[in-house]
Amino acid sequence: MASRKPILVIAGVGNGLGKRTIFGRSREFARLGHSVALIARNGSSLKRAAEEIKNTGADAHAFPVSQYDHSEIQSVFHTIKKHWPDQEIRTAVWNAGHSVWKPFLETTEDEIKESVGTNIVAPFAFARESIQSFKDLECVAITRVVKPNDVGARGTLIFTSATAALRGNVMTSAMAAGKHGLRALAQSLNKEFGKQNIHVAHAIIDGVILTDRTKQMKDEAWQLDPDARLDPQSIAKAYAYLAQQDRSAWTFELDLRPAHEKW
Amino acid sequence: MASRKPILVIAGVGNGLGKRTIFGRSREFARLGHSVALIARNGSSLKRAAEEIKNTGADAHAFPVSQYDHSEIQSVFHTIKKHWPDQEIRTAVWNAGHSVWKPFLETTEDEIKESVGTNIVAPFAFARESIQSFKDLECVAITRVVKPNDVGARGTLIFTSATAALRGNVMTSAMAAGKHGLRALAQSLNKEFGKQNIHVAHAIIDGVILTDRTKQMKDEAWQLDPDARLDPQSIAKAYAYLAQQDRSAWTFELDLRPAHEKW
Amino acid sequence: MASRKPILVIAGVGNGLGKRTIFGRSREFARLGHSVALIARNGSSLKRAAEEIKNTGADAHAFPVSQYDHSEIQSVFHTIKKHWPDQEIRTAVWNAGHSVWKPFLETTEDEIKESVGTNIVAPFAFARESIQSFKDLECVAITRVVKPNDVGARGTLIFTSATAALRGNVMTSAMAAGKHGLRALAQSLNKEFGKQNIHVAHAIIDGVILTDRTKQMKDEAWQLDPDARLDPQSIAKAYAYLAQQDRSAWTFELDLRPAHEKW
Amino acid sequence: MASRKPILVIAGVGNGLGKRTIFGRSREFARLGHSVALIARNGSSLKRAAEEIKNTGADAHAFPVSQYDHSEIQSVFHTIKKHWPDQEIRTAVWNAGHSVWKPFLETTEDEIKESVGTNIVAPFAFARESIQSFKDLECVAITRVVKPNDVGARGTLIFTSATAALRGNVMTSAMAAGKHGLRALAQSLNKEFGKQNIHVAHAIIDGVILTDRTKQMKDEAWQLDPDARLDPQSIAKAYAYLAQQDRSAWTFELDLRPAHEKW
Repeated sequence: MASRKPILVIAGVGNGLGKRTIFGRSREFARLGHSVALIARNGSSLKRAAEEIKNTGADAHAFPVSQYDHSEIQSVFHTIKKHWPDQEIRTAVWNAGHSVWKPFLETTEDEIKESVGTNIVAPFAFARESIQSFKDLECVAITRVVKPNDVGARGTLIFTSATAALRGNVMTSAMAAGKHGLRALAQSLNKEFGKQNIHVAHAIIDGVILTDRTKQMKDEAWQLDPDARLDPQSIAKAYAYLAQQDRSAWTFELDLRPAHEKW
Repeated sequence: MASRKPILVIAGVGNGLGKRTIFGRSREFARLGHSVALIARNGSSLKRAAEEIKNTGADAHAFPVSQYDHSEIQSVFHTIKKHWPDQEIRTAVWNAGHSVWKPFLETTEDEIKESVGTNIVAPFAFARESIQSFKDLECVAITRVVKPNDVGARGTLIFTSATAALRGNVMTSAMAAGKHGLRALAQSLNKEFGKQNIHVAHAIIDGVILTDRTKQMKDEAWQLDPDARLDPQSIAKAYAYLAQQDRSAWTFELDLRPAHEKW
Repeated sequence: MASRKPILVIAGVGNGLGKRTIFGRSREFARLGHSVALIARNGSSLKRAAEEIKNTGADAHAFPVSQYDHSEIQSVFHTIKKHWPDQEIRTAVWNAGHSVWKPFLETTEDEIKESVGTNIVAPFAFARESIQSFKDLECVAITRVVKPNDVGARGTLIFTSATAALRGNVMTSAMAAGKHGLRALAQSLNKEFGKQNIHVAHAIIDGVILTDRTKQMKDEAWQLDPDARLDPQSIAKAYAYLAQQDRSAWTFELDLRPAHEKW
Repeated sequence: MASRKPILVIAGVGNGLGKRTIFGRSREFARLGHSVALIARNGSSLKRAAEEIKNTGADAHAFPVSQYDHSEIQSVFHTIKKHWPDQEIRTAVWNAGHSVWKPFLETTEDEIKESVGTNIVAPFAFARESIQSFKDLECVAITRVVKPNDVGARGTLIFTSATAALRGNVMTSAMAAGKHGLRALAQSLNKEFGKQNIHVAHAIIDGVILTDRTKQMKDEAWQLDPDARLDPQSIAKAYAYLAQQDRSAWTFELDLRPAHEKW
C-alpha cells in the first residue's frame, strides 16, 4: 500500500508570528513532502502569503476564515480535504493566540474574551478537527508493520505556546490565562490520544521571534544575532523534528529560546 | 479610627460545592466578624441557603445573578455595598467553576465555553470588582501604624481551584483548561497587587468534598471518615487562616487534601 | 485516656535563620503546649538560645550534635525521648540547609557536598527518626474517636525550604540541587505517610527573613517594614497552623513571602 | 579554519541503561562525526562495550574509573584529551544515576548517599570538566561568522533524567531526591552558560527502556512493540537533535516517552 501525500494544516498566519514564521514552517514541511494549508482570519494578507510560499516551489493554499469558531473551523477542514482529495492531513499546527500586555485593571472584557477565545476555545475546535482527521486514517497505517509516515504517528498536532503558559505575571493576566488553558488542553490530548498513535505536543517559545513586526522594533545588531532572537526557521526545524520523532520516544513539551536569552 | 465591619463576598453557591460548603465558609468568617454576601445563579436555593445561615446567627444575605458576566457582577457588587453601606468588603471568595468529566471528542462547544466562562472570564470580572473594592479603602488602612484588620491586608481574594489547575488529563480537557486559566489569573493578580497590600490566593482542593450531592454517591463509612474526604468546615478554616495571615508571610498557593488521599 | 504533653523537635538553630527564628517557632509551639528540643551543630550558641527561650517560660532544652549524620541524629532523638520520658514527639521541624551563592565554576566540591548533606542526606535521617517516633505512638491515637491532638495527626514533620526548591538559577546550582532534593523527599514522604496519619509539609520561604544577621545587612526602614521582609514569628504562626490543620484538609506545600515581595 | 573532529564523552555505561543504550548513543553521534569516549565504573564490561562499538566502525574507547568523584572525573577528562590530542570535546552526556525503589523506612543510608552521589555530586564534577573543556575552545569558534559545528554551540551537555525529577512519590524518596537535584543543576547551568554558547539540556525519560536487563523482565510482545517501550536508538536520535539545534532556538528540557505510555 502506497501512503498518500501528507498535508500540513497551519492556523494563525495573520498574527504576530507573521509571514516569516509561516514561511519557515511551510518550507520545512514542504521539504518533508507536505502540502501546506494556511488558515487565518485576514484573507488578503493570507493569500499573498500563500502566493509567496508557492513561489518557493511548495504546494500551498490559503483558506481564510472570518472567525475562529467551531463551525468555521469544522468547515475549513472540510474544504481543505476537498481541495486535496487524494491526500491526508498528517500534521496540524496552531499558531494563533491573542497576546495582551496590560495592567489587570486596564484589561477589557473584550481582550479577556479574545485571549480565551483564540488560546482555548478555538484550539479546542482545531484539535477536534485535527484529531478527527487523524482518526479517519486507516488503522492499518499504524500497525507495527506498515508505517506510512515511518514514525508510527497517525498524525501530529502541535500547539505554539509561550512562557506565559507556565507562569502568570504582572501585565499578563489575560495572556497567561489563555496560554495556561492551551497547555492544559495540549497535555490532556497528549495523554488521551497517544494511545491511539496521535502525537500532541506543546512548544514553549521563550523569547522574541524575528518577524517583520519585531524587526521594526529592534536594532540591526539584534536582527543579525542568532543568539539574541528566535529564528522562525529554527522553530520550524523543531516542529519538523517533533513530527518525525520515533513513536518509542515522543516528546510532549519542548521549550525553545535563543542561546543568550535570560530566563 | 474605628474600623468598619467587614463583608465576605462569596460567589458560586449553587454548584457542586453546595450549601454545606457555603455554611462552612460563612460560619467561619462570621466568627471573624464578617457579614456574608452570597452570590449564585440559582436564586431560590440561594435564598434558602441565606436563610439557613442567618438562622445560625450570622448576618447573611442572598444576591442572585442571572449569569456570571461582567455587567451583572459589577452590578451585584454595587448592590452589596448599598445593602451594607457602613461596612466594607474585605474578603472575596470565588467558588464557581463548571466541571466537565468527559472524553475530549464528546465534550461539546457549550461545555468548553461554560468551563472557560465560569473558570476564567467570570473570575476576571469578580476579581476586578473585588480589587476595586479593596483599593477604594482608605490608604491609611495599610500604613504600618494603623491596621484595621490587624494583618495589613486591604483585602483578601481567594480562588477555589482543583488539581486540574496543575495537570491536564484524560477526561478533563475542558475542566483543566478552565482551572489552569484560573490559576494563571490568580498568580498574575498576586504578583501585581501584593505591592498594594491586596492578598490574592489560590486554593487547590485535591479530593472529594463532603456535600449533600457526594453524600448520595458514597457509602456511610466514607461520609464518617475525615481521613477520606474533605470537610467544608476544614476548608473554611484554611480560608480564614489565609485571610488572617501576617502580611510579612503571605501564601499564594495552598493545597488541601484528606490525610489518606492518594496523589 | 489523657494525652501526653507534646514535644517539638527543631533542628538547625545555628544557621542563617538564627535565634529569632527559633524564638518564634518555640514560643508559638510552647503556646500550643509543646516542650521544645533544640538541635544544632554549634553547642555554645545553642545553649544560650535554649536558656533565653526558657526565660520566656517555655520548656526548652539544647541537644547539640557534632555533625548531622545518621548515627548522631538517631542518637539525639534517643536522648530527647529520655529527657522527657513521659512526653511524646509530635512535631518536628527541619531548618538546617547550607546555602551557597556562587558562580558554578567557583563552587567547590566541599560546598556541593555540604549543600547535599544538610539539605538531603541529613533530612533523610531526621525524617526517619521523626516518622519512627510518630509511628511508635499508640495506634488508638488516630482512630476516628480518640484524637489526642484534636486534628488526627500522629505527628507533623515540616521542612523549611526556599524558592531554590522550585527553580535552578545562575549562582544557585549547589543550593538549588539541595533544596530540590529536599522537596522531593518531603513530597515522597507526604504521599507515603499520609495514609498513616503522619502529616509531612514543605514550606517555601520566598524572601529575606528578619534575623540578627540580615538586620546588619539592611537599613532600618527595611527592618521596620513588615511588607518588605519575613518575620520569624509570622513563619512560626504558619507552622503552628500546619500542625493544627484538620486531617480532612491537609496542606503539603505552602509558600510564604512578604506582601511587597517581587516574584 | 578547519574545525577539529569532535568527541562525545558519555558517562554511565555500566548501569541500568546498559550497552544497547550506549550503542544507540555512540552510533548516532559517530554518524555526526564524533569519536566516542565511554566512561564507567565497571571496567571489564566497559571494555567489551567499547570493542563492540568499534566493530560497527565507530572510533570509540573505554575510560574506566574506580568511582565517580571529583578527582577521578577530572583525571579521566585529562586522559580523554590526551587520547585524542587533535580533537575537541563537543558533546557530553551523563547517563549514570543510582535508582532506588523502596519504602522510605527500608532505604538505607548507603542507598541515599549513592543516589545523591551519582545523581548530584558526580554530575557536578562531570559538568565542571565538560564546561571547562567547552570554554577552552577558541572563542572565535562562536562568533557569528565562523561556526565550527554549524549550530553556534561551543558544546552540548545533556543530563539523562527521569520523571522522578519532577515528582516525589511513594517508593522513590531517594531516587526522586537525586533526580530533582540533577534537574536543578541542569537548569542552573543552562541559565548560567547559555550566554557563553554552551548548551545544557535535561532529558526526562518517562517509561521503560528496552535493554538487555528489561528484556528479561518483560514478554516478547512488549519487546517488539515500539509503542510500549523506549528504544535506545530513539533516545539517541533525540540527543543528536539537541546537539544540532540552532542556537536561535535551544531546548532546555525534553520529555521522551513511548506513544502508548500512561502518564
